[in-house]
Amino acid sequence: MSAVKFTDWMHHHQQRVETALEHALPAASIAPERLHEAMRYTTLGGGKRVRPLLAYAAGELANAAAKTLDAAACAVECIHVYSLVHDDMPCMDDDALRRGKPTVHVQYDEATALLVGDALQTQAFDILSAPGLFADPARQLRAIHTLAQASGSRGMAGGQAIDLASVGKELSRAELEVMHLHKTGALIRAAVLLGALSGEVSDEQLQHLDRYAKCIGLLFQVVDDVLDAVADTATLGKTAGKDAANNKPTYVSILGLSESKALATELAAEATDALSSFGDRAACLRELAHYIVSRQF
Amino acid sequence: MSAVKFTDWMHHHQQRVETALEHALPAASIAPERLHEAMRYTTLGGGKRVRPLLAYAAGELANAAAKTLDAAACAVECIHVYSLVHDDMPCMDDDALRRGKPTVHVQYDEATALLVGDALQTQAFDILSAPGLFADPARQLRAIHTLAQASGSRGMAGGQAIDLASVGKELSRAELEVMHLHKTGALIRAAVLLGALSGEVSDEQLQHLDRYAKCIGLLFQVVDDVLDAVADTATLGKTAGKDAANNKPTYVSILGLSESKALATELAAEATDALSSFGDRAACLRELAHYIVSRQF
Repeated sequence: MSAVKFTDWMHHHQQRVETALEHALPAASIAPERLHEAMRYTTLGGGKRVRPLLAYAAGELANAAAKTLDAAACAVECIHVYSLVHDDMPCMDDDALRRGKPTVHVQYDEATALLVGDALQTQAFDILSAPGLFADPARQLRAIHTLAQASGSRGMAGGQAIDLASVGKELSRAELEVMHLHKTGALIRAAVLLGALSGEVSDEQLQHLDRYAKCIGLLFQVVDDVLDAVADTATLGKTAGKDAANNKPTYVSILGLSESKALATELAAEATDALSSFGDRAACLRELAHYIVSRQF
Repeated sequence: MSAVKFTDWMHHHQQRVETALEHALPAASIAPERLHEAMRYTTLGGGKRVRPLLAYAAGELANAAAKTLDAAACAVECIHVYSLVHDDMPCMDDDALRRGKPTVHVQYDEATALLVGDALQTQAFDILSAPGLFADPARQLRAIHTLAQASGSRGMAGGQAIDLASVGKELSRAELEVMHLHKTGALIRAAVLLGALSGEVSDEQLQHLDRYAKCIGLLFQVVDDVLDAVADTATLGKTAGKDAANNKPTYVSILGLSESKALATELAAEATDALSSFGDRAACLRELAHYIVSRQF
């Protein structure tokens, strides 16, 4: 796949998930209006949509039906956005800027931010449990269960708790990896798996995709840590340098900058290796691995 | 059903949901330990378990399998507890006492309270989406969708938003009812419906149960408002008089105390009327309506 063709694919699918989210979220004219307006404010019109892109790429490989795949992409993104809204709150990272806009508790208020995050999490399960969304109800249940396990105390929320407990502590590389496999990796993995479950794949194919997704999850975090260390706030669309400011362990603080970059290249190679049995059908997943690395170097 | 027999039934099922929750929640020895410990701290060992009792009573009427019904009861209670944890946080009601114990943000910290609520919500959907939990996957999906719709921005979380927006405002009785139909009523309704969906009921029977549940939801809130106005903190196990202190509209502030009590009696009668076609099979649901009224007068 050419770089131009992939860029077209990416833009097309970023627009596609935007449209799908616009339809999936309650209109701002529906009561309670302020809550719905704030849910739309924080969810629509921003972000690189990496998780939806991964879901789409995996879903197209699995010949998923369009409405099923749109729902999977939206559900994963709703979970991601809810986690950002809560993570930005004063009692967590206390951040004022996200995706280039004031965070929800700054634009609205703290109570609204709390409820927006809560309601977006529910929205994800609401979207994914719609009657008749999947041809096979058992497969739909598997998708819901996969998302729940990835999001909860043994997945993303658990990763946030490990992150909280690690502030100001020296972590080993292994401990840092455990944290990120939960905090970022679990939902990225769910994005790939939900995309695949939206279509038809064998359990063996799911295992290959799972290996790919685990590498991508770590890769994503390594690149995030590098970006936080080297990029400026305008480029990031969120506050730069905040890991160091918050005294948080990162790949850069543990491995150094150049070794972190080398690790990213290595993880991208391992991710694409996991896709070898799919041939050209995995072209977009392969390009996404390169895209994640190329966000910086 | 005699009062003694109902009390036995109630105690038995309060113990039953306690045991089910103990098994459903991750052990405090599983990482991240502090998060799991806090989830167990706030969920176990407290509360009247009104929602699980409603689920059990509806499920037994519908001949639900024990493990399915336990899961439904636990899922509804996890959503309820998550809402309490977030509602008690400083940016919402800022309450220090719940179910006779320090609230999570007091006992732990605000960030942990945020994550405990988040993870308990996910836990509900995790429990309810377990493979093979229902004999019929389509019915399981319907239960999940019912819970999601009851919990989100057009249900419980939406009710919280309406509540926030109404602080310090004059509400009409109709507006107050809309708020409570969302804030408390939606999840109480879900408790009854999930119990019934755990077994076998016709759509017509579900409609009768739905009418019962809507009355019970409002009844519960009317009684809560009366209790908040007349009981003391020790009796309630949570801070008394906080609605008036927070300048929140309540049934008592709009209708007065004696008319609120009369409304409660009326709603209990309407609730039991909705059960007339079930005969003795609905004895526990009938007794629960009386029990909710008798919390106070």
